[in-house]
Amino acid sequence: MDPIILALGSAVLGLVLAGFLAKFVLSQDEGNAKVREIAAAIKEGALAFLGREYRILAIFVAIVTLVLIVVPDLGWKVALAFVFGAISSGLAGYIGMSIAIRANSRTAAAAAVSLNHGLKVSFRAGSVMGMSVVAIGLLGLSILYFAFNGDANFLAIIPGYGFGASSVAIFARVGGGIYTKGADTGADIVGKVEKSIPEDDPRNAAVIADFVGDNVGDTAGMGADLFESYVDSIIATMTLGTIAVFSTHLNIGLVPDEQTAWWLPMLVAAGGIVASIIGIFSVRVGEKLQMTALLNALRRGTYVAAILSVIFSFAAVYFLEADLGLFVAIVAGLAAGMAIGESTNYFTSYVYKPTLKIAEASQTGAATNIIAGFGNGLMSVAPPVVFIVIAIIVAYNFGDVYGVALAGVGMLATLGIQDATDAYGPVADNAGGIVEMSGMPHEIRERTDALDSLGNTTAAIGKGFAIGSAGLTALALLLSYTIAVGITPSQISLLDPAVLVGLFLGGMLPAVFSAMTMQAVGKTGFSIVNEVRRQFAEIPGLMEGTGKAEYAKCVDICTKESLKQMILPSVMTVLAPIVIAFLFGKIALGGFLIGATVTGFILAVAFSNAGGSWDNAKKWVETGAYGGKRSEAHKATVIGDTVGDPMKDTSGPSLNIMIKLVSIISLVLAPVIVNMNGIF
Amino acid sequence: MDPIILALGSAVLGLVLAGFLAKFVLSQDEGNAKVREIAAAIKEGALAFLGREYRILAIFVAIVTLVLIVVPDLGWKVALAFVFGAISSGLAGYIGMSIAIRANSRTAAAAAVSLNHGLKVSFRAGSVMGMSVVAIGLLGLSILYFAFNGDANFLAIIPGYGFGASSVAIFARVGGGIYTKGADTGADIVGKVEKSIPEDDPRNAAVIADFVGDNVGDTAGMGADLFESYVDSIIATMTLGTIAVFSTHLNIGLVPDEQTAWWLPMLVAAGGIVASIIGIFSVRVGEKLQMTALLNALRRGTYVAAILSVIFSFAAVYFLEADLGLFVAIVAGLAAGMAIGESTNYFTSYVYKPTLKIAEASQTGAATNIIAGFGNGLMSVAPPVVFIVIAIIVAYNFGDVYGVALAGVGMLATLGIQDATDAYGPVADNAGGIVEMSGMPHEIRERTDALDSLGNTTAAIGKGFAIGSAGLTALALLLSYTIAVGITPSQISLLDPAVLVGLFLGGMLPAVFSAMTMQAVGKTGFSIVNEVRRQFAEIPGLMEGTGKAEYAKCVDICTKESLKQMILPSVMTVLAPIVIAFLFGKIALGGFLIGATVTGFILAVAFSNAGGSWDNAKKWVETGAYGGKRSEAHKATVIGDTVGDPMKDTSGPSLNIMIKLVSIISLVLAPVIVNMNGIF
Repeated sequence: MDPIILALGSAVLGLVLAGFLAKFVLSQDEGNAKVREIAAAIKEGALAFLGREYRILAIFVAIVTLVLIVVPDLGWKVALAFVFGAISSGLAGYIGMSIAIRANSRTAAAAAVSLNHGLKVSFRAGSVMGMSVVAIGLLGLSILYFAFNGDANFLAIIPGYGFGASSVAIFARVGGGIYTKGADTGADIVGKVEKSIPEDDPRNAAVIADFVGDNVGDTAGMGADLFESYVDSIIATMTLGTIAVFSTHLNIGLVPDEQTAWWLPMLVAAGGIVASIIGIFSVRVGEKLQMTALLNALRRGTYVAAILSVIFSFAAVYFLEADLGLFVAIVAGLAAGMAIGESTNYFTSYVYKPTLKIAEASQTGAATNIIAGFGNGLMSVAPPVVFIVIAIIVAYNFGDVYGVALAGVGMLATLGIQDATDAYGPVADNAGGIVEMSGMPHEIRERTDALDSLGNTTAAIGKGFAIGSAGLTALALLLSYTIAVGITPSQISLLDPAVLVGLFLGGMLPAVFSAMTMQAVGKTGFSIVNEVRRQFAEIPGLMEGTGKAEYAKCVDICTKESLKQMILPSVMTVLAPIVIAFLFGKIALGGFLIGATVTGFILAVAFSNAGGSWDNAKKWVETGAYGGKRSEAHKATVIGDTVGDPMKDTSGPSLNIMIKLVSIISLVLAPVIVNMNGIF
Repeated sequence: MDPIILALGSAVLGLVLAGFLAKFVLSQDEGNAKVREIAAAIKEGALAFLGREYRILAIFVAIVTLVLIVVPDLGWKVALAFVFGAISSGLAGYIGMSIAIRANSRTAAAAAVSLNHGLKVSFRAGSVMGMSVVAIGLLGLSILYFAFNGDANFLAIIPGYGFGASSVAIFARVGGGIYTKGADTGADIVGKVEKSIPEDDPRNAAVIADFVGDNVGDTAGMGADLFESYVDSIIATMTLGTIAVFSTHLNIGLVPDEQTAWWLPMLVAAGGIVASIIGIFSVRVGEKLQMTALLNALRRGTYVAAILSVIFSFAAVYFLEADLGLFVAIVAGLAAGMAIGESTNYFTSYVYKPTLKIAEASQTGAATNIIAGFGNGLMSVAPPVVFIVIAIIVAYNFGDVYGVALAGVGMLATLGIQDATDAYGPVADNAGGIVEMSGMPHEIRERTDALDSLGNTTAAIGKGFAIGSAGLTALALLLSYTIAVGITPSQISLLDPAVLVGLFLGGMLPAVFSAMTMQAVGKTGFSIVNEVRRQFAEIPGLMEGTGKAEYAKCVDICTKESLKQMILPSVMTVLAPIVIAFLFGKIALGGFLIGATVTGFILAVAFSNAGGSWDNAKKWVETGAYGGKRSEAHKATVIGDTVGDPMKDTSGPSLNIMIKLVSIISLVLAPVIVNMNGIF
């Protein structure tokens, strides 16, 4: 029996579970008429955006497919894998968002019953997303495997799938990210800072756009993002399979044959799906409104899944008769992911000193708040780098470069539950907004707030995993690229001017990319602020509650701006490696990829954690510290939070995608790039 | 005749000019009693700080000297060069500051006469600093050359001088940077944002500390910084001399012998000093209060110097019978410096779109202002990287790695005048403060404001040169390091895990370093805000102008905080390469150095330009845009400016030093590091 049957089976199992959970969520009470009305507006806006976004993506995919077919050394099989990857990614995002826009009102209604019920509905909705991502990913790879594993070009075809997934991801993350943070920024500036009205107040014309943003950015965008991380890590490991058989470093084969080298990451992922399913069912919470109880419930789930994943991975290594050192590499990856997640939590949760210091600095105004938060983000880069370095050293020593790639798979094996704990956050956030807007009692809002706040922490941990795995996966893809174009280690010297040029230009890309996405959010936010201000000025009785805000206007602005502005940074990223290879040759491109990976990793961590800590510093002040809500300190934290929004939810996560995208494009185009020597 | 006599001669000429200019400045009218009283307070605070800072530095220098003497492979000659470099750097900073703290009151008095006279006094004071830096630097190197050029270990001794200069520079830049921006931040937050009183208002208890900061940070700190850049670039070229003789790439000797390879950078620098002197004398301005006229006057000076420097460099290459390709490399460096300076000006001057966009974004508050400014900083990374890359490619093709190093010297050859246009800014800034505090007429303040504002632009251009040359010099030092420890190009592969580990850890260093320095400024600013607030609350009649602020308290806080907090980041930087080599070996250290250079370069540019553009966006609003002074938009720009302060004047410039310091330490300690292989 081909072991990939197991991968196929667990993918199907994951889909069945997703269906089961979706059915559960959809069977819940939708809430009263007011709640349903708000939810309908959110649904309409979100689906309209996704439809238009996917239409733009379709054009992009069509162009690239054509190019792939036409270029002699690539051909229709790579093109097919590319389209398949793009569609799979889009599907994962669509499913996740479809359930999220239906779960928000149901979570609001469930929170009216009890906290536990609220958690159940939102977490199960998040789990639909988590399961869809991993199940569709593994299913797609299994299908490709069965279709092409006999093909001599198998290792050239399979990266096409990742290229498709990465391409969709970058557009979805950037577009969704600009949308959600443009709306959020705009809503906060006028609502909280200028008018001193609460978050999600119905008088604020940008609230519906803000809710739509949670779905299109934090849910659909994130789904595409994690889908990409997941499949790319597996693909990177499969393409390094040849090395695992003929390791130069250890002088022994790490696996019996090439086929086994492909099977191993698939089976580790398959075990991770089963582990995640069990983990999801072990999340339960009592009725106490305590952050720690909630957090522990989710933690239990992820730890159960992690332990099971380790056991399953051992079984996979053992039964495939692979070197046991590879098991060590897998565990090193998983441990590094956990450690990075914990350090992210330390730097962004208001239980710890770094975030409390930012809150303290807010007493002297927005400027000191921002300096403190940005400094914290930069400082938080240290542990993830150290953990990644340790993982690289351990994985390399026990499993050569194949081990490094496998460590990335180990880190992401339990993505099913990781994503679930991440994706439920925006659902709870939306539910809270609906509670506020529909005028439900204050105690229900407190419950959704508890869920949402917890979501920030789990999201931070999830981001730690995402960036950690991105680093390892990008490295693995880079190594695959050099093998594919036939660069030997001694040919790619750090002292070669081509490599130095590549390193500098690669290091520049994340900065320019972040600038574009950040400025896009700023621009969208600026438009929203002016629109909300206009409505307050022109609509009679809006502030007093007798007039009605025109929500659709803000939804429209966000949709147009974000779709327009997602194109340039995304297309730039796709073209960059090709331009570099053309101008400076394939060796410079190697330097470029590593430069982009290192700088991208560092900026992504700094941006994500700075944003997370600003957000939670605000939440800490809102618990009553330094004068609590409406104090001057609070205003300062709101400004900090707003500055952090594009960093943590647009630029930061997009960088994760970027560093893999440039590598996987280089890998896919290797047959073309191999002939490029540029000016060197 | 030994050609270095020419270097010695031009250094002496530079010192004579500095003395002549100093005499001119000191002969000027010191202003009225009130002006003199304020100037005395500034002088006292600045000298007290520098005294205490140098005492701490003396301890550090003593410890390092002892270590250098004791370690068998280094010895007393390296130690002597180190002490000499440290003292020279300290002296350059001291002379520059000594004149600055005497020129401020005289510039205020001169501005009362005419704008042209104000420019003359302040620019001549800046020229004293510029000339001192280059003259002392070249004098020191000449002395070392004559003392040790017959020594077999000459190429091991001479980097000791750079190590000394770099060590002093990092402490001085970090300490001075924390001081000046802590005071500035604190003064602005309470004065401008909370109390809406003008800048430099005597009621603000932090004003004197702020003025002192301009001198200890922007003058003394910058002097040590540029001194380091200057001597390190020459040293890096000298140590690459061996390669110039036996080029592997061009298969020909670029210079007749090793001696010539040492002479060339010295003579290019010597020509640059003469060119700068002529350039300084060609700066003159009419009496029109126009930014463009002022800017053109300074530009004329720098362009005259640049053209002369090109001619002198050609002469040096020609008469030393070196390959004419080296002349191309020198010009490539100079052109890249100019181009980077112009791009810096584009991204930070309010004449251009990027800064105007930030001002526009301020209409919707501080958050959008900060997002726009930070995005602009990140975007501004692109041109400098591209220009540096072009310079590397051209210089390498025409002069191998020796050419790359020489391009750095070419870029800094005219540092004498570059530094003068940079250093006069803080003098004008101080003068403006004195004008404000002493209640001189408004039109005089307008004149000093024009001088100061222009200083921001020239400072921005100067920063472009500083970071550009830092990149090239760090590369050259890194190459020298690999030669010194005997790493061949094929041994330092980008695919080697040791190199990858080094790259990640090296990329992390600038982030952590910036975090520390930024947080130090935030902390100092926080203390200052609380003190100024306390004085407003407790001193009767302070706001009404009947009470008197206790300036000394703020001066004391800044001194203590900055001296305490400069130690950790500086010592960390010094120890980092040693720890990396010990843990991971000499090859990983190569990766570490390049990782630190690339990320450091990118962050330095982003921070400097973000800060510069925030500052000028504020100045643009102050000209009346979007409601002008006291408008909500203005408050937003003040917050942005405050956030940018530590970025542009503490973290950013310190990174320039950092990337060279880690390389030069590695080079100096090469005889020890050569035996380190760490865990790899």
